Amino acid sequence: MRIGDIGERALARRLSRIGYPAAAPLPPGDDAGGVVARGRALLLKTDGFRAAEVRLSGMPEAAIGWRAVTAVASDLLAKLAAPLGFVLAVFLSPDAPVERALAWTEGAARAARAYGAFLLGGDTNAGEEAVVASGFAEAERPLSRGARPGDVVLLVGDRYGLSGAAIDAHYRGVDLGPYPRIQAAGHWPRARLSLLGLAPFLPFLSGSADSSDGLALTLWLLAEAGGVGAELSSLPLHPELLAYAKAQGIDPEPLVLYGGEEYEAVFAVRPEGRPFVAAWLEAHGVPHHWAGRFTERPGVFCCGEALLPRGYDHFR
Amino acid sequence: MRIGDIGERALARRLSRIGYPAAAPLPPGDDAGGVVARGRALLLKTDGFRAAEVRLSGMPEAAIGWRAVTAVASDLLAKLAAPLGFVLAVFLSPDAPVERALAWTEGAARAARAYGAFLLGGDTNAGEEAVVASGFAEAERPLSRGARPGDVVLLVGDRYGLSGAAIDAHYRGVDLGPYPRIQAAGHWPRARLSLLGLAPFLPFLSGSADSSDGLALTLWLLAEAGGVGAELSSLPLHPELLAYAKAQGIDPEPLVLYGGEEYEAVFAVRPEGRPFVAAWLEAHGVPHHWAGRFTERPGVFCCGEALLPRGYDHFR
Repeated sequence: MRIGDIGERALARRLSRIGYPAAAPLPPGDDAGGVVARGRALLLKTDGFRAAEVRLSGMPEAAIGWRAVTAVASDLLAKLAAPLGFVLAVFLSPDAPVERALAWTEGAARAARAYGAFLLGGDTNAGEEAVVASGFAEAERPLSRGARPGDVVLLVGDRYGLSGAAIDAHYRGVDLGPYPRIQAAGHWPRARLSLLGLAPFLPFLSGSADSSDGLALTLWLLAEAGGVGAELSSLPLHPELLAYAKAQGIDPEPLVLYGGEEYEAVFAVRPEGRPFVAAWLEAHGVPHHWAGRFTERPGVFCCGEALLPRGYDHFR
Repeated sequence: MRIGDIGERALARRLSRIGYPAAAPLPPGDDAGGVVARGRALLLKTDGFRAAEVRLSGMPEAAIGWRAVTAVASDLLAKLAAPLGFVLAVFLSPDAPVERALAWTEGAARAARAYGAFLLGGDTNAGEEAVVASGFAEAERPLSRGARPGDVVLLVGDRYGLSGAAIDAHYRGVDLGPYPRIQAAGHWPRARLSLLGLAPFLPFLSGSADSSDGLALTLWLLAEAGGVGAELSSLPLHPELLAYAKAQGIDPEPLVLYGGEEYEAVFAVRPEGRPFVAAWLEAHGVPHHWAGRFTERPGVFCCGEALLPRGYDHFR
């Protein structure tokens, strides 16, 4: 059987259980793995990509390293774990300029600092241009994927669809000058360190997941982990996204649902906890959107329509 | 300036300082990076390679994942840090069999267990076949690179030159059937968890380094970190290495000095500590070789002859 026949997620499911410890603070296949040491959870996460896959027109080279660390930080922060450090492995051609390696590493170091941590080294190899960032983080109790019937769907952040629009603009050759938030989301996505402030509300949180596989798939992952379904009653539609979609004559909703790459985070919140969580988010100026409910009925629906558990697949 | 013009080590020196914390438990560019958290050092390390670079004839696919985790574990153990967990990022063609991804991951998980830790997940990407392992570890006080004049050169392990011989045999097309230790060193190199038993002797240890860049370069790294030189009076010459070299009509010493890939560890030991360290190594059956002295005179010499600070360079 070829890897392309089963696809990335079926492969990841099979790999995630291999060697994974039974007494881990998060189940296999969650956003990060971990161990418990001296009473605290220490999480470890790795994420890589080929440079060619993520380069958008006009993107500075430093954004490659920034994105790699951001992707890892986003998974760790979605688990309410505080990043401690990151490392960056790079593959580059011997003919590549030294400045490219420096720029990737400087971008990674800036990202590490933005997440309250440090860049702790790396590795260099000759090969097709690619980066792999890894990072570790600690948490008293990390939040796993999951949801319970009646939980409220909380979308933290306001970039849903913006990264997808940046990718769309890249392929259409659209200048993003008039859309600074879309360009920023595409070039310099920023995971939210402020998520750590949600830790005191853990008793009200049933689960969380990083949104970078796209909102629809993220909701599927949360719902499946909890053995439930989800029903969205509204979607967050950023004004710039609406303006961009209108100018291009396209529907913005698929970008919100399937665009991905936002590095935001989705939470399942107990209904009785919503006022407290909402007050905290508002007091701290963290953009968010209450999008619907987790339900007994399996499947994920938006305004009555079924959403597919599909996202980007590296192998298809 | 091309990366190939400056080479891997000059590039690594420039990258290693970027974003590295001032108050780290190890200096930038050491075998691993780290932070101090709750009074203990937490180290993080990443190491990657293209599969084509390490595949030897007859090597099982699981050995690819084993080697990736071993390379990281070796760096962590050389710092006397206890591994907690590893992750494995892989790049594979969509046309590769699913079994290859499973085998790499199973090899990585077996290695993680061999080093007292777990495999905590990974990431899969389409691309030229490559793996990047990352791992974290903890230590009360990790041992940095370094040496002082008068320190004894301690080579822990007995695989010096064996991995180099396995690579040599691969290119010559020599069957390793009669050389089981060379084949094992080439296919399943094993970092030494027993190094952790040296922690009580820290007051007698001036520095340490993983040997995988080759013994000559490893000695250069230790000597330069200490601002000293080294003078070897003897080399460890494994009986199988001697037999192999004789049968091929080659000199075994360059394999010991420049072969690399052994994942053994070299220590600078205060002369007054040597009896205690020796007694511990002997009591625990850890093979080792006392090879010479660190000296005031800069440079690294073996039996009077100057050794070059050269090792494998991915970019040259």
